[in-house]
Amino acid sequence: MQTEKKLRINAARLETSIHALAEYGQNEQGGMDRTTFTPPELEARDWLKDRLNELILEVRVDQAANIWGKRPGTEPSLPAIAFGSHIDTVPNGGKYDGALGVLIALEVMTLLNEQGIQTRHPLELVSFSAEEPNPFGLSTFGSRIISGKLKREHIAGVANPEGQLLAEALSNAGGDPDRVEDAVRSAQQIGAFLEVHIEQGKRLLDRNIPVGIVTAITGIYREEVVVCGEANHAGTTLMEDRNDALTATSEIILALEDVCRSHPASEVVGTVGRINVKPNAANIIPEEAAFVVEIRGKSPDEIREVLTSWEPRIHDIERERSAKVKRKVMLDQDPAPMDDVIVQVSQEQSKALGYPFYRLGSMAGHDATHMASITRSGMLFVPSIGGKSHCPEEFSRMDDIEKVSNVLLHTILELDRLIDR
Amino acid sequence: MQTEKKLRINAARLETSIHALAEYGQNEQGGMDRTTFTPPELEARDWLKDRLNELILEVRVDQAANIWGKRPGTEPSLPAIAFGSHIDTVPNGGKYDGALGVLIALEVMTLLNEQGIQTRHPLELVSFSAEEPNPFGLSTFGSRIISGKLKREHIAGVANPEGQLLAEALSNAGGDPDRVEDAVRSAQQIGAFLEVHIEQGKRLLDRNIPVGIVTAITGIYREEVVVCGEANHAGTTLMEDRNDALTATSEIILALEDVCRSHPASEVVGTVGRINVKPNAANIIPEEAAFVVEIRGKSPDEIREVLTSWEPRIHDIERERSAKVKRKVMLDQDPAPMDDVIVQVSQEQSKALGYPFYRLGSMAGHDATHMASITRSGMLFVPSIGGKSHCPEEFSRMDDIEKVSNVLLHTILELDRLIDR
Repeated sequence: MQTEKKLRINAARLETSIHALAEYGQNEQGGMDRTTFTPPELEARDWLKDRLNELILEVRVDQAANIWGKRPGTEPSLPAIAFGSHIDTVPNGGKYDGALGVLIALEVMTLLNEQGIQTRHPLELVSFSAEEPNPFGLSTFGSRIISGKLKREHIAGVANPEGQLLAEALSNAGGDPDRVEDAVRSAQQIGAFLEVHIEQGKRLLDRNIPVGIVTAITGIYREEVVVCGEANHAGTTLMEDRNDALTATSEIILALEDVCRSHPASEVVGTVGRINVKPNAANIIPEEAAFVVEIRGKSPDEIREVLTSWEPRIHDIERERSAKVKRKVMLDQDPAPMDDVIVQVSQEQSKALGYPFYRLGSMAGHDATHMASITRSGMLFVPSIGGKSHCPEEFSRMDDIEKVSNVLLHTILELDRLIDR
Repeated sequence: MQTEKKLRINAARLETSIHALAEYGQNEQGGMDRTTFTPPELEARDWLKDRLNELILEVRVDQAANIWGKRPGTEPSLPAIAFGSHIDTVPNGGKYDGALGVLIALEVMTLLNEQGIQTRHPLELVSFSAEEPNPFGLSTFGSRIISGKLKREHIAGVANPEGQLLAEALSNAGGDPDRVEDAVRSAQQIGAFLEVHIEQGKRLLDRNIPVGIVTAITGIYREEVVVCGEANHAGTTLMEDRNDALTATSEIILALEDVCRSHPASEVVGTVGRINVKPNAANIIPEEAAFVVEIRGKSPDEIREVLTSWEPRIHDIERERSAKVKRKVMLDQDPAPMDDVIVQVSQEQSKALGYPFYRLGSMAGHDATHMASITRSGMLFVPSIGGKSHCPEEFSRMDDIEKVSNVLLHTILELDRLIDR
């Protein structure tokens, strides 16, 4: 026991892994272009599988193309303790979002092998497929399949804008689109799930605290809005004769911003990150603007409040401009509380290691949101410098990374002792 | 002379040509996807060259890939009378914009051959390259080269978003990017230029008049605006911490709309037809929005007035949102008056044929704008049903088309008699 208490992860080795994985998909601006199922992401998957094989783990790619590496426990009847994150990125994203959680998991496995430490529960490293929003329109893809929320019929016919079928991309990555339901896992198989992730905000940094212990994950509401106007010549159509889809959209976007700014809860946010205009030519009045709206809040009520204030303003804009607005909900995910036992054990381990910690909600969605629906789940946050993420400037300090990694390591070992299912 | 006065174009043959050319690039919605230098546009060029060869015209593709079909005159010392338009379209455009002017010119040539009519001046049909805004960012490409406004250095390095060089596309169409200056023509070579086009507005239709005689062509001002914000996570970045390029852009677009609506001249218009956001992902706050602004007016002053009112509002938005706005002028084209003699002759011929005519300004830019800088030029307009253009619903009645074609035919014959250079 004494030996285990003194166990610390190897930060230098972890840092080397971070640089090694960042080779896959790095662009000229130093950003990461490792969108799911693209060639660099497939190469990164091969890199990870090679590392897992070197550790003599039992490596498995499931029907959703999630990558698993299993280390046996001494009590085969116990469920696994799983931990990991994802290695795909947004376009021109950073090196830490997702990748860090997988690489820390890899370091934990490496260290346990090196030290010859046996656990009662089997341990499973997981790298989930397609966590980030992607051209197939399905984020947290792997964990949604694992938790039974996404099924074969949700995949059928889905294609990216280039026309590639998701089924084909999934097969290329080692998945099986016809049998994704076979990837579903239960609390009988996974007794606990832990994910380390960068905070992507400034709360830890502002408080100068290295370890974030997540108490709940934000709800995310996402919808596609299509504003229909009328295409016409930009020179010969007088201002009063126009039905311009883009000016109507501009008003709708500003109305959303205004509603979110006016909401009393500062963590309520609304974003239009993606927009496509048709026909998108300089001398044609836009006929259609399609955009994705995302609203987040700590509670389902906060999200409803934004929608309730925004909707009548959309109707006013429709009426005043004789535009037609079509809306389709893409995602409506309630906030997910994290498991009390894991939060408690994480706090104790952080205290025992002498690291200050801070309890906070996650304003970003994560694979842990979906894992929480099948098993006890927890998350640890690493401070993000400048609060930046999803950009080339995304950065976390090795000192903070090391501390959070040690909290993960000891939380896993303590849970291994503590839980009996 | 008596025979010539009774000459009328063959409307049925012309209608057949309209349908035949519309086969090239027609999409499922009935719209035309015949953007310049794309495969369907190259096929349409071949179709046109075949028709010109059948008429035993002297067919020539110049260095700008403009297509010329020449019919000799009886007095070789006289310059040519040229007429035509363009056959490229905007994405999902209509069957009449541009194509009609080329097909009427073809019908005029066919009829003169059929009737064995000799003219003093050589006659030249012309189909200009790349009149419409296109992915290479250069509209009225062919006529700007002809008039010496666009040179080799403007083509060097220009590529479409797919990375294809304009030089390569131009070569594929039969042009010569290294020698475009050789395509320049002068008043010594072309004594007059005439273009028939659809009105693309509702002034003729509202007055129930079949023949539009253009007195001047609108000025067009076009600039690219890039609004720079800061990419960040759409969940973890509080509303007050954001620097969102798309919300800033929305305000700038609405400011332009407001300025144009408030301008006393009803024909002053401003449009944002094209916009691209980076990185364009649902959960990333937009880092950059690039859009093209187009402003048109009857006089250079009207365009300046819009810019003068819009600019301080852009500065206010920049300041309030700490966004950064970069602007680059792409096109700043003064209004072009049409030639008095041609306007006069067109009116007389319309009167002699018994057709009501209406004098009007063109709110759309045309190849005739540039031809007017090298030789006497004129335009005739055909009514557009519903004022619609640049869309699949673009339509003109054969009855109106026939009348305007006859005015063109007799204006050419009268100019042939009248002018001695």
